[in-house]
Amino acid sequence: MQLVNIKVQQKANLFLVLFAVLVAVYLHYQHQKSDQRHQPNGHAHPKNPTTATLNNANTNMFNNFLSPDPALPVPSSSEIEAEERVFNKSVRAFNKYATHSLAAIAKKRKDYNSARTNLRNLVPKTELDSGKDVFEKRLEDVESCIKRNQEVVRSMVVAMGADPDSLDVPQGRRVAGRPNPDSVVMDGDMDKVRSTLRQFVRDWSAEGAAERHDTYSPIMETLERIYSHLPISERGGITVLVPGAGLGRLAFDIVRQGFTTQGNEFSFYMLIASNFVLNSMKTPNSFTIYPWVHSFSNMQNAEHQLRSVQIPDIAPGGIPETADFSMVAGDFLEVYGGYKERGAWDVLVSCYFIDTAKNIFEYLGVIWNALKPGGVWINHGPLLYHFEGMKNEMSIELNLEEVKAVAKNMGFIFEEERMIPSTYTSNENSMLKYIYNCAFWVARKPSL
Amino acid sequence: MQLVNIKVQQKANLFLVLFAVLVAVYLHYQHQKSDQRHQPNGHAHPKNPTTATLNNANTNMFNNFLSPDPALPVPSSSEIEAEERVFNKSVRAFNKYATHSLAAIAKKRKDYNSARTNLRNLVPKTELDSGKDVFEKRLEDVESCIKRNQEVVRSMVVAMGADPDSLDVPQGRRVAGRPNPDSVVMDGDMDKVRSTLRQFVRDWSAEGAAERHDTYSPIMETLERIYSHLPISERGGITVLVPGAGLGRLAFDIVRQGFTTQGNEFSFYMLIASNFVLNSMKTPNSFTIYPWVHSFSNMQNAEHQLRSVQIPDIAPGGIPETADFSMVAGDFLEVYGGYKERGAWDVLVSCYFIDTAKNIFEYLGVIWNALKPGGVWINHGPLLYHFEGMKNEMSIELNLEEVKAVAKNMGFIFEEERMIPSTYTSNENSMLKYIYNCAFWVARKPSL
Repeated sequence: MQLVNIKVQQKANLFLVLFAVLVAVYLHYQHQKSDQRHQPNGHAHPKNPTTATLNNANTNMFNNFLSPDPALPVPSSSEIEAEERVFNKSVRAFNKYATHSLAAIAKKRKDYNSARTNLRNLVPKTELDSGKDVFEKRLEDVESCIKRNQEVVRSMVVAMGADPDSLDVPQGRRVAGRPNPDSVVMDGDMDKVRSTLRQFVRDWSAEGAAERHDTYSPIMETLERIYSHLPISERGGITVLVPGAGLGRLAFDIVRQGFTTQGNEFSFYMLIASNFVLNSMKTPNSFTIYPWVHSFSNMQNAEHQLRSVQIPDIAPGGIPETADFSMVAGDFLEVYGGYKERGAWDVLVSCYFIDTAKNIFEYLGVIWNALKPGGVWINHGPLLYHFEGMKNEMSIELNLEEVKAVAKNMGFIFEEERMIPSTYTSNENSMLKYIYNCAFWVARKPSL
Repeated sequence: MQLVNIKVQQKANLFLVLFAVLVAVYLHYQHQKSDQRHQPNGHAHPKNPTTATLNNANTNMFNNFLSPDPALPVPSSSEIEAEERVFNKSVRAFNKYATHSLAAIAKKRKDYNSARTNLRNLVPKTELDSGKDVFEKRLEDVESCIKRNQEVVRSMVVAMGADPDSLDVPQGRRVAGRPNPDSVVMDGDMDKVRSTLRQFVRDWSAEGAAERHDTYSPIMETLERIYSHLPISERGGITVLVPGAGLGRLAFDIVRQGFTTQGNEFSFYMLIASNFVLNSMKTPNSFTIYPWVHSFSNMQNAEHQLRSVQIPDIAPGGIPETADFSMVAGDFLEVYGGYKERGAWDVLVSCYFIDTAKNIFEYLGVIWNALKPGGVWINHGPLLYHFEGMKNEMSIELNLEEVKAVAKNMGFIFEEERMIPSTYTSNENSMLKYIYNCAFWVARKPSL
């Protein structure tokens, strides 16, 4: 039995989604016959919306912070083509992972061999293979790990229904005489594939348990506290939105506690990977990845670099029948910025998410809009604004005090505020670690 | 009285130094009349070299790991011109600091003003200036800080004897039809200027005391332990080399303990700044910088971003009359790779240095070569190989075990090995911190 259905569904009236963004990954484990709950030509919204959320008269509660014209236009064919190019480029980046990564190792071997022999002879020989030294052996082992990673990466592409052998780089429409950047796989795209491997450790491995504890537990504990009066089997009417869902573990943990949960994710890399883990992984520890092989810096020994990680730590099943689980692809502002999403959600959980905004004001407005009166916003994360310093992108970087002040002036009542140290896809063995001092808060939109 | 003399001296026979690298910053506080100790046409070497270091017959002890022809050619006029361009580009980067940084703030203001008014109106107003909100006020304050930083930056350029008003960007010789990269100030060059400001915090402010304690104290304690039998006044014959000296604090701390100390630094940015602090700063807290104003991410409040730092925490004086202090500009391999540097040093301290190598083998060979028999190598730092992943640069990334194995096979006897967590130019208030798990060791070259 397939764990989760994947649907491609036209929703242009609701948000500016184009072909590939339309790959809305509806995950309804044990709910495959419940499609009637999703509007066929509309956005998959939680079941049982309360009538309170449809109160158009209450403009202060909803419309105030929405952009003037949330009814977005139907995408043109050229826009759809552009989205197809971006999706296909992501697929090609996955497909080129091994080729690209092995080329980097080949360069390292060339550099190594260019060192003077009398110095290289100081590197210890391997015991079993007397002709090689331990560095040469390490390069070979890294190459083997890359090839094994590629097998997993290929499975992801196949699970997405895409072509795992497309390696060509069509130039697409040329922009200002240059190849369309949507069409050419760049180093940055390959970084995203490697980053995806590390995300598996964070979300779906035993090694990631400590990081998940630091990051997800405060959120889960808050949900349990707020809804302690409801047994898991009676939480299906409580709707939780998780924008920036990544590989889906947090959303999955939430739905397992009985809440009807929807993840939202913009990145095709994340969507391809989350589809894989949620749809294709039937048993724990069924896949092996080598997430740390690519970085040769700050390594104490070969074992740290070559360390394998088993995924998933748990099979992504066991969702209560009373809860609904969906994943929606697309830009947060476009998907949830419209009138139809007004007051649709009891809880919005933003975890390492709000700093992905180009315009943090618009994020806050959509968060406010999407919540029901009395709804709860749980935030956890740093303020590493993703677009800061990018020349051709807008970026507004409010500091933490300012973000909270704007939210409070919108009307949010802050019930809890604290700082929590945590890490993000951290390699516990690296000689360099990134420690985030995250802002955690629980804020409530007033009741009507 | 000028604290330190700056000399420009031709040393082409010793190492491949060109005009600007020749700006050897000889620091001999209270030793201005002792120039006879420096060979006029040679490399400034420590006084009282032991005759043991000149034993040419002992090739295993010295020549084994040196490149075949350490006698480097006299630089050509075009090479000298190229170095002049690099030096002048560094000066222009310092001079353009405010212009460049203010342009970045102007973009932020433009982005902010493009946000919808009803959302921006949620940002609290300032109390004193009712027309502005706290974000707009923050932008203005940051601009003021940048202008005050520029005054300090200008002082650095003036102290170096360079033109603080040169802002033009001559194209220089064109390479493959494009402006010579040595001539054009790039974003990366401006990053180095901003990084220089943060280095002042690490090396010369009270705020940096904890970081210096983590990083420099294990080194200082090792020196004190090894030379506890000598009072400070009798350590002038002990020679300590500090490659990658940066802003010079570690080298300065060492010379204050009576050791004859030489710093070596490749970066013109660091050299311009170290010259400034060591030559121009006569009294503690005589300059104010704002090192954290440039990053708008991961800030909790305006105070953290606008925080001023006083430099220096101590006036760089108080060097014992018995000790000699010098700073030499240039590439470590070129300056110390020759026969003349064989066995010149009792101690070599590499602190956050060995990972600047393109070819770590050559670094290790030169470290071995430069030490006297019985000399001590103290290392502290991570392995963040600076050239990893650069397409047009060689990079050999041995891991920690491999580095130590090569050093041991060279002949080093490791007397102490441990890992020490520390930070590097860390902003204690940032919501993102980088923690290094540094490799510390004390290794001895065997006596004859």
